[in-house]
Amino acid sequence: MCEKCCGERNHGAVIWITGIPASGKSTIASLVQARLAEMGLPVENLDADLVRANLSPNLGYTEEARDENTKRLAWMAQMLSKYGVTVLVAAVSPLQKYRDRAREWCPHFIEVMVECPLEVCKQRDPKGLYARAERGEISDIAGWHMPFEAPEKPEVHVNTTELSAEEAAEQVLAAGKQLGYI
Amino acid sequence: MCEKCCGERNHGAVIWITGIPASGKSTIASLVQARLAEMGLPVENLDADLVRANLSPNLGYTEEARDENTKRLAWMAQMLSKYGVTVLVAAVSPLQKYRDRAREWCPHFIEVMVECPLEVCKQRDPKGLYARAERGEISDIAGWHMPFEAPEKPEVHVNTTELSAEEAAEQVLAAGKQLGYI
Repeated sequence: MCEKCCGERNHGAVIWITGIPASGKSTIASLVQARLAEMGLPVENLDADLVRANLSPNLGYTEEARDENTKRLAWMAQMLSKYGVTVLVAAVSPLQKYRDRAREWCPHFIEVMVECPLEVCKQRDPKGLYARAERGEISDIAGWHMPFEAPEKPEVHVNTTELSAEEAAEQVLAAGKQLGYI
Repeated sequence: MCEKCCGERNHGAVIWITGIPASGKSTIASLVQARLAEMGLPVENLDADLVRANLSPNLGYTEEARDENTKRLAWMAQMLSKYGVTVLVAAVSPLQKYRDRAREWCPHFIEVMVECPLEVCKQRDPKGLYARAERGEISDIAGWHMPFEAPEKPEVHVNTTELSAEEAAEQVLAAGKQLGYI
């Protein structure tokens, strides 16, 4: 039992990883997922792209669509975490209100800010998103065309130009242990 | 461990309750949920109306929308059931293909057909749906304006003009136990 949650059962942690595209969110999420699985913990990785592909193939990237997608992710995360599953959510989730809603719903919430300068993200660009924007095909990248509100008080703040993804994942795990959520 | 599932952990049952509006699906789901909770089992009731309200407030009742909604329900159900949660889904889910997809995704699947004649459902009409249709406000009720394909081989088939909701819930539980899923 946990004092912070409903008292009925132990909630799993919800590790919500935010940052602009190509900052390294999904890579960190996968590493944390693998480590938790090694520890024998039930863990689900609700990668935003995967959830979109499965549940919302036609959802775009307007503010309204992002609101809907992050609401859906938060709802699924709280539901899984109720049953003791540790849930990773890697999602740009550019506005604080999206993350605050998730925090409100999930008792063991860990907000992870993945910082990386826009210029570095443009060079990395693993999905070719920035290249598409350069060609004028899209104009809805958070942190460039649309606002990205960095969290004011995240539980974890990593800068992926200073840390490797492995080191960042370690910081996330360390924070989860320190908070008593993992 | 279970021979039928992934071998990694015990899957929870997914009890998928289908039938035309006002046939008694949600009532039966609530009763089964309460009984499973009494038994101390983790159980989640993914009532279709509730999931729509939380995740898809603007989704309608076209065939495409129903396809999307039942896909979402099935995806959420399989995810929860992976962690040993028994999941109830009460959803009109009028086409066999919607239910077949859910069966494919969920190893411990129990399809429950709730039968009730259209005329009786029109009289019950707890949500005023049929009254709205009579007034010409809606014309997308499955089993009336749109096809409802009754399952060919459901694990459970109850007729709510012959059985009480309590008796129907008992049949669902008995089937689940017989199959070894509960």
